[in-house]
Amino acid sequence: MPETNHQIRLAARPVGLPKDSDWEHTEEPLGEPGDGEVLVRVNYLSLDPAMRGWMNEGRSYVPPVGLGDVMRAGGVGTVVASGHGDFAAGDHVVGQTGIQEYALLDGAGLTKVDPSLAPLPVYLGTLGMPGQTAYWGLLDIGRPEAGQTVVVSGAAGAVGGVVGQIARIKGARAVGIAGGEAKCRHVVDELGFDACIDYKAGSVATELRRHCPDGIDVYFDNVGGEILDACLAQLAMRARIPLCGAISQYNSSEGMQGPRNYMSLLVNRASMTGFLVFDYADRYGEAAREMAVWLQEGRLKTFEDVASGGVQAFPDTFLRLFRGENLGKLVLEVAPA
Amino acid sequence: MPETNHQIRLAARPVGLPKDSDWEHTEEPLGEPGDGEVLVRVNYLSLDPAMRGWMNEGRSYVPPVGLGDVMRAGGVGTVVASGHGDFAAGDHVVGQTGIQEYALLDGAGLTKVDPSLAPLPVYLGTLGMPGQTAYWGLLDIGRPEAGQTVVVSGAAGAVGGVVGQIARIKGARAVGIAGGEAKCRHVVDELGFDACIDYKAGSVATELRRHCPDGIDVYFDNVGGEILDACLAQLAMRARIPLCGAISQYNSSEGMQGPRNYMSLLVNRASMTGFLVFDYADRYGEAAREMAVWLQEGRLKTFEDVASGGVQAFPDTFLRLFRGENLGKLVLEVAPA
Repeated sequence: MPETNHQIRLAARPVGLPKDSDWEHTEEPLGEPGDGEVLVRVNYLSLDPAMRGWMNEGRSYVPPVGLGDVMRAGGVGTVVASGHGDFAAGDHVVGQTGIQEYALLDGAGLTKVDPSLAPLPVYLGTLGMPGQTAYWGLLDIGRPEAGQTVVVSGAAGAVGGVVGQIARIKGARAVGIAGGEAKCRHVVDELGFDACIDYKAGSVATELRRHCPDGIDVYFDNVGGEILDACLAQLAMRARIPLCGAISQYNSSEGMQGPRNYMSLLVNRASMTGFLVFDYADRYGEAAREMAVWLQEGRLKTFEDVASGGVQAFPDTFLRLFRGENLGKLVLEVAPA
Repeated sequence: MPETNHQIRLAARPVGLPKDSDWEHTEEPLGEPGDGEVLVRVNYLSLDPAMRGWMNEGRSYVPPVGLGDVMRAGGVGTVVASGHGDFAAGDHVVGQTGIQEYALLDGAGLTKVDPSLAPLPVYLGTLGMPGQTAYWGLLDIGRPEAGQTVVVSGAAGAVGGVVGQIARIKGARAVGIAGGEAKCRHVVDELGFDACIDYKAGSVATELRRHCPDGIDVYFDNVGGEILDACLAQLAMRARIPLCGAISQYNSSEGMQGPRNYMSLLVNRASMTGFLVFDYADRYGEAAREMAVWLQEGRLKTFEDVASGGVQAFPDTFLRLFRGENLGKLVLEVAPA
């Protein structure tokens, strides 16, 4: 075992897309777990659009990452040494490891996972936060009924892909929106959506009218911006919009663009509701059990996009999310288990 | 009885604020009521910001007023002649009279009212659509709990004034937003709100932080634009925003301004929901009975701003709504009962 831990720390608050000089590459000696602590060898790191928001000044739903701090990130890893009775060396765990090779963590924040049931990266995707986000946002906020039409943006991403598949499991039609022909093919052919609109190929508004002739009953919004406006213009009566994110706006240095068509909510007696997956923490088990069954039955497919290069590759790999290059959950391999 | 009916017809679709040339003043002989019809002498006409939307091309929640048609408007009047068994000459009725001195109407669309219980203009305000809008938007969509903070814009208007008073009746705090010192004094001193913010006097955001230190639980939005954004920035967790209107945007010729701070819905797990009072039509009686009791008990105060000049004064009087000149419900007197 090496005695040095490599880390990526936030050196400056990014303006627009994070650039190399916003990051500091550091190394420090490995610590020893104290009472209740666990030393984890990070195997895979979760890269997620929401991390962009954590880099900004000012409190949002979580405090910002402090300047000089190890960049916050979820990860899955292997216990190296444990000072906590629930964990032993060799156990696999998920938790907030941060962008580093080893993490010394409070055992209270860790959850054991079983790599014989699903490969470790799946616990950062469909069986992790993205899957939980899709499940609760769609079923608790969107509440699609059988026969209704669910539209989801970021349909080839970690959350969107699960949203559409659950919509279909519940008897609804699923229409995805994604960027590029390959992604759209993936969404329809591999994830089983009824249709997928390539927002780079033409008018989203026109395609929404074509694929949702009776209107959109649920629009699960991951992107904001013009696509949100196009969906607002095509709502069905009493439509629900779970607000999950706004990736099109996260790197804007000119401030957010608000949805110009929001008065469609009034005309259609529709609602737009924000949610955060953490609020469902005491029901994660419920969702995980149901999704694990769907996975085993082959009704729910999971895709992970595993990038290599270790923690040093984080600054570049993270940008792939905003270039729309990932298919499924983007994870960074630090040390294969 | 004169034999001529004077009318105001929509001559052109306004761009921005309606101007004189958008209207045609016409006269035509009075008709006779056929079977099921009622001839009504209009006493008072309801002037409402929503009428601006009806002048635009394109279907919204109701079809637009056709070019050349008598401008659509609610009114209260006196039956002159009746071909409908439920109505007799001398009865007082409310209905969609349009901007004219006499209206020949299907009796099915009329409702009798009692001028001994309340003056006729009140049936266009607190005991009419504005009161119903306030009641259902606040209680069914906003759902304030005792001790929570309700903010309402257009607080000196026909809807907003009732919203804040009902909020207080239900045990919530009511904070109004209105334009000018006189209106704010009216809202606090006469309507009994806890506070009123003068949006013309300073920073709405600063004043919201001062008057709503624990955040806004319900924001009843009549105005949209910058005030909606300021309220979004001060939401409490799980806040509700009933969307009632967007008067700041109705005359914009550059398209709507979307709420830039809408992601506050996500951070605060809050919702923004459109509604239309017509959806509650089968429960109007329920609300009217409860509000009539509050009126009698003096817990609900009603103010009508009665403009004179008859139908010829409609084009100018209507603009008072957008100059923020009315206090309470703006009605146009056509012929005092």
